[in-house]
Amino acid sequence: MKLDQETERSGIQQRPVLRHRGTTSAGATATTDQVAEELPVALVFNGISHAVMMVTPRDLQAFAMGFALTEGLVGKRSDVFDIEVQEHARSVEVALTIAQEDFMLLKQQRRSMAGRSGCGVCGVESLELIDVAPPRIDAAPLHDADALAPAIARAAAALGEHQHLMRATGGVHAAAWCDASGNVLRVCEDVGRHNAMDKLIGYLAFERVDMTQGFVFMSSRASYELVRKAARLNIPMLATISAPSTLAIDVALAAGIKLVSFCRKDDCVEYT
Amino acid sequence: MKLDQETERSGIQQRPVLRHRGTTSAGATATTDQVAEELPVALVFNGISHAVMMVTPRDLQAFAMGFALTEGLVGKRSDVFDIEVQEHARSVEVALTIAQEDFMLLKQQRRSMAGRSGCGVCGVESLELIDVAPPRIDAAPLHDADALAPAIARAAAALGEHQHLMRATGGVHAAAWCDASGNVLRVCEDVGRHNAMDKLIGYLAFERVDMTQGFVFMSSRASYELVRKAARLNIPMLATISAPSTLAIDVALAAGIKLVSFCRKDDCVEYT
Repeated sequence: MKLDQETERSGIQQRPVLRHRGTTSAGATATTDQVAEELPVALVFNGISHAVMMVTPRDLQAFAMGFALTEGLVGKRSDVFDIEVQEHARSVEVALTIAQEDFMLLKQQRRSMAGRSGCGVCGVESLELIDVAPPRIDAAPLHDADALAPAIARAAAALGEHQHLMRATGGVHAAAWCDASGNVLRVCEDVGRHNAMDKLIGYLAFERVDMTQGFVFMSSRASYELVRKAARLNIPMLATISAPSTLAIDVALAAGIKLVSFCRKDDCVEYT
Repeated sequence: MKLDQETERSGIQQRPVLRHRGTTSAGATATTDQVAEELPVALVFNGISHAVMMVTPRDLQAFAMGFALTEGLVGKRSDVFDIEVQEHARSVEVALTIAQEDFMLLKQQRRSMAGRSGCGVCGVESLELIDVAPPRIDAAPLHDADALAPAIARAAAALGEHQHLMRATGGVHAAAWCDASGNVLRVCEDVGRHNAMDKLIGYLAFERVDMTQGFVFMSSRASYELVRKAARLNIPMLATISAPSTLAIDVALAAGIKLVSFCRKDDCVEYT
């Protein structure tokens, strides 16, 4: 399938605010502010509602494609036959049609996982289902020792100018795709860091980008789920502006993904 | 039940790193860094595994109590009879014993929600289950117009000194309980903002603090789920350092919770 032309949607809404300056009420002025949109988005696979996430509602076809790939619900891009976005008043439904064999696996998996579940690991409800030992990725290292720091420096210097939604609203995350030299080629933004990454991966999949030849650069911290998602796509390196967690480091090492955090214009930390 | 003495656990681990300074490899030095711990924590209610979350593994009894209350799984603190923390090599299991009538409701709810689910809304899998119209809270406003800005200013000035895990590792969130004047009375930290809040609420519940008489101050952005959790406990105000989302604002207004974001020492934005 091809990406449809997206309906124009900024992901930004106006809200009335009272802006306090100083610590006395005299300084308060009534005005409006630009706020990042957050809306429940249901992902429905072959007619079965599978997950609801709080998402900034734009780039939703890419988001659905990315989610299906990074969560391993489809084996490859071409297993997704159709993605239809239906906007309701206070929510969005995204209906995917996926290959029958992927759907059979998904149904099997769902049968063995009945029940309500928690945040942060996409709804896993018992410890056996946590996958902290992913297979090693099928990709060569992106850099030799000399090339890493300059690439990070270039990406870190450039990311800010691509964060349009962040500048307007504050408080959204960016996921950027960079070539091996650190040139920022595409940026997606969302209130959720994992959503931003899924949108990015979705676009790369639609555009048939070779994901073994570049790296993902996140404005957020490095958490378990970002590393796990990158591993499913054989992305050789994940760079983040903020800190990693122990599990992000451990899973990155197990998968053979290079993890670099605290990425600044002339400073970064590589986990070894 | 009472809170047990916690086993000493810092939530911090050492990891080997290569620190790059400047953009040439010559500047790289091998050293170690302090990293915030992230571990899968399974919450088991009366023998049934209900949710797994990625958590910084400390304050786990408080976390479990807070989660049960903020997710509405128990009606009140005294419905939790026992919380037992079992540490495994790479995960933790927290077994709660809750009142039979709460457990019956939980089992009913689970039956109607079979399946795998998504992040950010604690595992909701279809749109009907998203609760964006909570009942109004049962608490009086905390401040008149004059008292808001000084309280925020005091809390914002004080929060940093309480963020011990943040200073050591970067990249963790803090949830603080403040009295109406903005004095910071207790702070919990975690890699996940909703976990930090659940830990905080758990301690307040154990200590029988009247949650209608103070406010929660978060180092993070204001998202839907934080407002929703606060509403379940009749907390009259949520303040955050970073931005809110549209849904956080809308749900706060619906619930009658005062939401204040971009909280700095002499500056904040109130949503009206």
